[in-house]
Amino acid sequence: MKLNIAVLPGDGIGPEVTNQAIKVLKAIALEFDHTFLFKEAPVGAVAIDKHNNPLPDNTLDLCKSSDAILFGAIGDPKYDNDPTAKVRPEQGLLKLRKELGLYANIRPVKAYDMLLDKSPLKQHIIEGTDISIYRELTGGIYFGKKYLSEDGNTASDLCEYSKYEIERIAHLAFKNAQSRKKKVTLVDKANVLETSRLWRKVVTDLAKDYPDVTLDFLFVDNAAMQMILNPKQFDVILTENLFGDVISDEASVIGGSIGLLASASIGDKYAMFEPIHGSYPQATGKGIANPIASILSAAMLLEHFDLHEEANLIKEGVEKSLKLEITTPDLNASYTNVSTSKVGDFIADFI
Amino acid sequence: MKLNIAVLPGDGIGPEVTNQAIKVLKAIALEFDHTFLFKEAPVGAVAIDKHNNPLPDNTLDLCKSSDAILFGAIGDPKYDNDPTAKVRPEQGLLKLRKELGLYANIRPVKAYDMLLDKSPLKQHIIEGTDISIYRELTGGIYFGKKYLSEDGNTASDLCEYSKYEIERIAHLAFKNAQSRKKKVTLVDKANVLETSRLWRKVVTDLAKDYPDVTLDFLFVDNAAMQMILNPKQFDVILTENLFGDVISDEASVIGGSIGLLASASIGDKYAMFEPIHGSYPQATGKGIANPIASILSAAMLLEHFDLHEEANLIKEGVEKSLKLEITTPDLNASYTNVSTSKVGDFIADFI
Ligand SMILES: CC(C)[C@H](C(=O)O)[C@@H](O)C(=O)O
Ligand SMILES: CC(C)[C@H](C(=O)O)[C@@H](O)C(=O)O
Repeated sequence: MKLNIAVLPGDGIGPEVTNQAIKVLKAIALEFDHTFLFKEAPVGAVAIDKHNNPLPDNTLDLCKSSDAILFGAIGDPKYDNDPTAKVRPEQGLLKLRKELGLYANIRPVKAYDMLLDKSPLKQHIIEGTDISIYRELTGGIYFGKKYLSEDGNTASDLCEYSKYEIERIAHLAFKNAQSRKKKVTLVDKANVLETSRLWRKVVTDLAKDYPDVTLDFLFVDNAAMQMILNPKQFDVILTENLFGDVISDEASVIGGSIGLLASASIGDKYAMFEPIHGSYPQATGKGIANPIASILSAAMLLEHFDLHEEANLIKEGVEKSLKLEITTPDLNASYTNVSTSKVGDFIADFI
Repeated sequence: MKLNIAVLPGDGIGPEVTNQAIKVLKAIALEFDHTFLFKEAPVGAVAIDKHNNPLPDNTLDLCKSSDAILFGAIGDPKYDNDPTAKVRPEQGLLKLRKELGLYANIRPVKAYDMLLDKSPLKQHIIEGTDISIYRELTGGIYFGKKYLSEDGNTASDLCEYSKYEIERIAHLAFKNAQSRKKKVTLVDKANVLETSRLWRKVVTDLAKDYPDVTLDFLFVDNAAMQMILNPKQFDVILTENLFGDVISDEASVIGGSIGLLASASIGDKYAMFEPIHGSYPQATGKGIANPIASILSAAMLLEHFDLHEEANLIKEGVEKSLKLEITTPDLNASYTNVSTSKVGDFIADFI
């Protein structure tokens, strides 16, 4: 298979971890006789520095002419604490999601047996956890009208959803559930929000097309609690943009390190793959960033093109590195000398 | 001291736990020679059933003519899954908060030494946790304009904040921090939301009045993670309405049971005290609901009127009941015969 892959390393540790994912994809190409072509473009704070634009046109064009996008991370503290900044790195990511119509963000959360002791949660709580989170990614309060009064004393953000936006991601979630434990949990705040009541109504109606799947509901505050009390109760979680942001980051603690969690952002035309950890500026350039989330994002990319054997080989390599403790310091206090790039080497060599 | 206390038991387990709080307050009155007068009124689903109104005028009037309000719980599953219901129990609680101007919801989160083993989190993670959460309670997306299109296919909720709304609760949070570990963490989503940027700006300016207090910032997704990874890092958390709802419910798992967590909702004129657990319909009438959150809410009520000795005695009684495992089944798998009312009796007798 031939794939054109756009590489958007972005900010902070983005470039170092993305390099390991590329290394691994190159090993796969060699082993399975595929042709993967990588083209890089700037996004985020680095793009602001160079082009005063967090998503330059050339970057967007490259994405649109590629088969898939490998994304690193975005964000820089110099913008976070400046409420008056006009241009922000995150706008690049949000615009990319919107322009490419990447409406479904899929985040698998798994407790790896060999890492049970790394989790802040007790072993019996997390053992066997296997959740697939479907977060709506191009709607809701992220993209609604924003307002700041002229005197700067009043602000607002609008959260909007349409039936159509809810249905298209709900279908993906239910289909995924059919190949799993056949349960979808809708997370919302239907006791307060009109948009949540719309979600509940649309998803309840649509569930009738999937009689083999059980649908249940959880208010987001309760979900935040249940995720820690009993994560095993979940199979597929379906939720809107902001709730998905919070719940999936929270869920990331289960596995013992956010450095393990991959994600796919899927639309009808384009698909992007990125680790869920952020740009982690404190770690930049130190060789301590965990590349596994980025490497597993590359595996999700391969799965997207039905290259399951290839994806599985990457996952095996990851599990082997975890078993042998060829891991970065977040997972491994004793061997602090295993660097980002050595983890990448190990998995690429395995392949 | 003479206090007129409005009692709003509400739905589900509300009445049974509130009764224990009253029992304990009566014991305090006897011991310290105070006069506490209790008057009860309906709110929530029970008020809808009786008066077709989740907050009848009489109930609101009673609250306005009382010195403080003791609240039980609200919510009934028969409304949760009916997106078309016109009247909902929760409207009663929201209207009460708004009408009484209860803009600051204060939720203390503590890990009790004798309950460390009940938590889903590992002991070394939670030991010594002591957080005071300040959640804004009368603004944000809870109270913004709601919209549902006529064809029922589009919905929206508006999140709005003004400088004034932010300042009044921020002052309370900073003052509280001054008597604690002198740190305030503002939880927001300033990389995406205009309202969050307003929060960040207003709180940053106001922090200059409290040079002895350190202010830091955390995006809500990261906060949801940090709350589990390292809850000890927090002292006072300050946040808007919806984020506070999610983060404080999440934080409730630290202590081992949501059945322990009290809250105070404070305004310039009125004050209301309620357990943070909900109506827990599955447990209603079974005598298994933990009354401690409600009893500790009564202690917060006393503190509000500077009755510190009285409040401390209640807290001692609670700690003793925990130590002797005179507790409901949520905390106590072996002695499942300790009922809601027996826990109340024990603490009242102790006083
Ligand atoms: C960087 C930020 C805008 C982004 C989001 O909130 O969507 C990130 O937290 C994520 O989850 O991908
Ligand atoms: C019942 C509901 C409206 C309420 C809220 O979301 O504020 C509850 O969850 C709470 O936290 O007091």
